[in-house]
Amino acid sequence: MKHVYLDNAATTQIRDEVINEMTNIMKNNYGNPSSSHSFGRSSKSIIEKYRKRIASYLNVSASEIVFTSGGTEANNLILRSAVRDLGVTHIITSKIEHHAVLHTIEQLDKEYIMSVSYVDIEPNGDIDYLHLETLLKTESKTLVSLMHINNEIGNVLDLKRVVTLCKTNEAFFHTDTVQSVGHYKLDLQDIQVDFLAASAHKFHGPKGVGFAFVRKNSGLKPLIFGGEQERGLRAGTESIHNIVGIAEAMDMAYRNLDEESAYISNLKQYFIDKISNDIPKVTFNGNSGNIKKSTYTLINVCLPVNPSKAAMFLFQLDLKGIACSKGSACQSGSSQNSHVLAEILNDEQLQKPSVRFSFSIYNTKADIDYVIGVLKELI
Amino acid sequence: MKHVYLDNAATTQIRDEVINEMTNIMKNNYGNPSSSHSFGRSSKSIIEKYRKRIASYLNVSASEIVFTSGGTEANNLILRSAVRDLGVTHIITSKIEHHAVLHTIEQLDKEYIMSVSYVDIEPNGDIDYLHLETLLKTESKTLVSLMHINNEIGNVLDLKRVVTLCKTNEAFFHTDTVQSVGHYKLDLQDIQVDFLAASAHKFHGPKGVGFAFVRKNSGLKPLIFGGEQERGLRAGTESIHNIVGIAEAMDMAYRNLDEESAYISNLKQYFIDKISNDIPKVTFNGNSGNIKKSTYTLINVCLPVNPSKAAMFLFQLDLKGIACSKGSACQSGSSQNSHVLAEILNDEQLQKPSVRFSFSIYNTKADIDYVIGVLKELI
Ligand SMILES: Cc1ncc(COP(=O)(O)O)c(C=O)c1O
Ligand SMILES: Cc1ncc(COP(=O)(O)O)c(C=O)c1O
Repeated sequence: MKHVYLDNAATTQIRDEVINEMTNIMKNNYGNPSSSHSFGRSSKSIIEKYRKRIASYLNVSASEIVFTSGGTEANNLILRSAVRDLGVTHIITSKIEHHAVLHTIEQLDKEYIMSVSYVDIEPNGDIDYLHLETLLKTESKTLVSLMHINNEIGNVLDLKRVVTLCKTNEAFFHTDTVQSVGHYKLDLQDIQVDFLAASAHKFHGPKGVGFAFVRKNSGLKPLIFGGEQERGLRAGTESIHNIVGIAEAMDMAYRNLDEESAYISNLKQYFIDKISNDIPKVTFNGNSGNIKKSTYTLINVCLPVNPSKAAMFLFQLDLKGIACSKGSACQSGSSQNSHVLAEILNDEQLQKPSVRFSFSIYNTKADIDYVIGVLKELI
Repeated sequence: MKHVYLDNAATTQIRDEVINEMTNIMKNNYGNPSSSHSFGRSSKSIIEKYRKRIASYLNVSASEIVFTSGGTEANNLILRSAVRDLGVTHIITSKIEHHAVLHTIEQLDKEYIMSVSYVDIEPNGDIDYLHLETLLKTESKTLVSLMHINNEIGNVLDLKRVVTLCKTNEAFFHTDTVQSVGHYKLDLQDIQVDFLAASAHKFHGPKGVGFAFVRKNSGLKPLIFGGEQERGLRAGTESIHNIVGIAEAMDMAYRNLDEESAYISNLKQYFIDKISNDIPKVTFNGNSGNIKKSTYTLINVCLPVNPSKAAMFLFQLDLKGIACSKGSACQSGSSQNSHVLAEILNDEQLQKPSVRFSFSIYNTKADIDYVIGVLKELI
């Protein structure tokens, strides 16, 4: 059977070069980076070299990069410490954030005396910037947490606009960039966010490693306590091979960005053209059908399928060897609908199956031909 | 130059078989375990297969194993949730625990209304069991957190005795088994601890992965919030290759345990005999000189060296290519003395250099001959 992987927003295939580097490090550098002897120093210097490399792509200093076990931990670290240590008593976020942000904020709301505001979402999936401005007019010490690129509908936040709003209103700004780091260039001198979260497995790196960017002198404190690793911000023996993996993956992503993003954009445009032609009643969720207003890496389509067939639709694609998703991976096992689409679609639209297809350099036009062929057959 | 690695309590070399398995998984199984399509299901089933394997070695059910990013995170998860969610208002621990336990408890003590008691330590490094019994006589909901094997002096806690004391007094019992899992058989039906923490890199597995054992129906809640991974107890996309790594390392450790532990015990006894003969004024810290009362994996010696030379002693061993340590790896970079030795040695003893040598299957008697030769030369 043909296997077509179009779920690259859930996770990506690791590049061979990344695997090779990781394997090398596991074989040759086993010293504990906290040990003062030569084995330890050699591991330590590897970590610091790769940290610098990551920092340079974001135009920040190496000391502002804190390695974590993934995007989820990075979000947790930033949000919890903001409330516990930075005096934040008010968080502004949106209902279409990833659960790593939403559930963490819900938990903090249970543990602390604080309030949470949700910024309104436009029908196209963008946030309502004027509503954000209104929410920021408050006496409470506020943190804004809004994702750069939405993992389900691909909408892109205007980071600079939000930075300006936050600065004017003396609020902290944290952004979940798990879907953009490795896919978009981010210059954090130009874009003055206070914090961001990233994850390697979304850009052909290993699973279980990410980082938080924590702007200097922010006063952030750890989520995980113990040894003095990561300048005291994240205890636990460093996963050296994973750190090498994320840095290598980021290096390859940014060195080949122009070429690879053009290739993937091309695939997405091909998908849009072809599906619009072959399945005329298809609609695109959020901004995902507009290649200028959404990420080039994914599309989210609402298919003209009889509601009675909707529940089994994804399963039937799976039977045809097509990997795609209903929403974020964390939900795909459940029968629940996407919490993101629930915010922007009406009841009638929610009855039809919506499917996210997300692309990478490993996909081809032949993959897309196959998928659209299968979709036509099923509809 | 000769290189002799005798710091296996800080971290160990990864077994080749473990690296090969990890590399295979990274190459061939990149699906997100939370995805419902075939790529995802295949990753999910790998994780569950390896989880079962780990559970079987501890004689527990697979659902009681929660994968984490290491021993530090596992300790943090258990301790924080005990205080936040299980109603614990009193923790009994000891001053010779690892910082992953001590600093976490200090932090909890700042955040919550609770009290912390430290059980007395005998001059040999054992806890004072009678004092523990006294501390347990309290109205407060109590958690005892005591490590199984001390990472600096190798003393072994009588787990069953502490379990009985805790059960009698209706206290929870958590044990940091980072230095014993993979080195000692633990049957958790026989030893009824409520929680334990383990880490792969101490038994020839990868760095950055560990697990918490969380006994069924304990009511523990997450440290890291987001997706529903690990039955809702630990959010974040799973580090599949690291999980495979810890399970493979554990499998190899336990399948070869009798043979390998005999080999390492033999090395330790050889070290004791030889150093006692060649450097007669040496003393052994804690129980580490008594092979029946301490772990077979390490020794901690106090050397008859002039205090003026003590500070540079470890550095001189490093120059001779010998990797060993002053205390835990987390401290070895600092000029601070070991917090463990500070509890059991007098001022005069603390002036002399104490050094921990820790062994593995990759060491030989020739390594030990070399080290003792260098020690003789330096003293
Ligand atoms: C006794 C003990 N507990 C906890 C840890 C921390 O484990 P990890 O390095 O996996 O975070 C260590 C070692 O570093 C240890 O020796
Ligand atoms: C937007 C977004 N944030 C956070 C995460 C969580 O990152 P990780 O899987 O590394 O924990 C994901 C993906 O899973 C994501 O898409």
